[in-house]
Amino acid sequence: MILTIPTANRRQVIDLTDILAEQSRGKSGHLSIMVLHSTAAITTANLDAGTDLDLLDALAGMLPQLQWRHEHNPAHAPDHLLASIVGPSIVVPVQEGELQVGTWQRIVLLEFKGPRECHIDVSFIGAREEPTMEL
Amino acid sequence: MILTIPTANRRQVIDLTDILAEQSRGKSGHLSIMVLHSTAAITTANLDAGTDLDLLDALAGMLPQLQWRHEHNPAHAPDHLLASIVGPSIVVPVQEGELQVGTWQRIVLLEFKGPRECHIDVSFIGAREEPTMEL
Amino acid sequence: MILTIPTANRRQVIDLTDILAEQSRGKSGHLSIMVLHSTAAITTANLDAGTDLDLLDALAGMLPQLQWRHEHNPAHAPDHLLASIVGPSIVVPVQEGELQVGTWQRIVLLEFKGPRECHIDVSFIGAREEPTMEL
Repeated sequence: MILTIPTANRRQVIDLTDILAEQSRGKSGHLSIMVLHSTAAITTANLDAGTDLDLLDALAGMLPQLQWRHEHNPAHAPDHLLASIVGPSIVVPVQEGELQVGTWQRIVLLEFKGPRECHIDVSFIGAREEPTMEL
Repeated sequence: MILTIPTANRRQVIDLTDILAEQSRGKSGHLSIMVLHSTAAITTANLDAGTDLDLLDALAGMLPQLQWRHEHNPAHAPDHLLASIVGPSIVVPVQEGELQVGTWQRIVLLEFKGPRECHIDVSFIGAREEPTMEL
Repeated sequence: MILTIPTANRRQVIDLTDILAEQSRGKSGHLSIMVLHSTAAITTANLDAGTDLDLLDALAGMLPQLQWRHEHNPAHAPDHLLASIVGPSIVVPVQEGELQVGTWQRIVLLEFKGPRECHIDVSFIGAREEPTMEL
C-alpha cells in the first residue's frame, strides 16, 4: 500500500510508528518502508521533546557550505543530499503483530522539502522463520 | 546474482536503476541490493546534472579533518568511513514488475575507491503480501 | 531471536559477523538485523586495526557543535542523532549458508551509549529466489 502523509513544514520529522503498528496487527514477518521521493528519508529516532528539531539541525549543520551544481535549483541540493545520506528505506521485523523496536525508538519520516503530500510504500515481506503463535 | 559494475573514477555515483528494473520484470516482492565492498555504498539519489558530484563533495566535506589510524593506508580511511555512514544495502519494493521508486529517485552505487570492478549482490525476496495481477 | 550483546565502552564498534554467520548456517535467503535502541546503529565496516576508532571519531566530528534541545539530557543528544543518521538496520543476503559480504566487510553494531546490554533482533526472511543446493 502507499501511505500518503501530508507534511506541514519545509523540514519536519514525522512519527510513523502508530500507523505502521496498525498495518502489522496479526502478522509476523518484516515490514518494508520506503519513501518514494528523492528529498525525504526513513530511519528510526528518539522523539523526546526537541529531539526532532535537533536532528534536523544536525543534518543541516553537518553538510559543508559549497556552491552546489544541482541545476534545477542549487538551493535545494541539500534536500537531495541529506535524503541520500540518511537513506530511503528500512526493514523492520514484526513478531506476532508487534513491530520490533526499542522502547524509545520511533520509525520516522524525515521530510526535507515540504509541505506536500509525501508518499511511502509500506509492504509486508513473507513470514519470519521462527515459531509464532496465531493471533 | 552478482552484478559486476566497472567503475571509472576514484569516486563516482553510478545509476543502477535500469539494470535493476530489468531484474524485476514480471515479479512482485522486494529486491535486496547489497554492495560487497567496505569502500562503496548503496542508496537512492536525485541525478539531475551535477547532483552526483554534489553528493560526492558533500560526503567528503562532512568528514572532520583528522589523523586517521587506519593502518593499511590512512589516506584511504575516508573511503571506508563514508561507506559505513551511508550503508551497504537497501531493500526496494517491486510491484507487478515495477521497482517502487519516486519519479526522480534513482538507485545508485556510491563508489569511493575506484576504478575497479565493483560487485553487488542483487537478489529477490519472497512475494509481497498484497493482491497483485499476474504479468 | 534477540541477540544480547554486552558493550564495554560508551562508544564502541562491535563485530557481529561471526555470530551472524553462525545463525545463517544451512540457509539461503536474507538476514534482517535491527538494533532495538535509539542510541545504537547497524552497518558494515572495514575493521583493520584502528578503523573502528576512526569511525567513531568521524561520526562525532561531523556533527555541528550546537546547543541541543533534547530535554532528557542535552549531552546525550548526539548519541540519538548519530543512531538516526547511520540507521538501525540492514538486510544481508545469505546464500547456501554463507553471509554475502565482501572480504574485508564486517557487519557491525555501533554503540553510542554504553556500557550496557544491547539488544538486536536477528531474524531470517523467506527464501531467496535463485537455484540453491541443499546443504
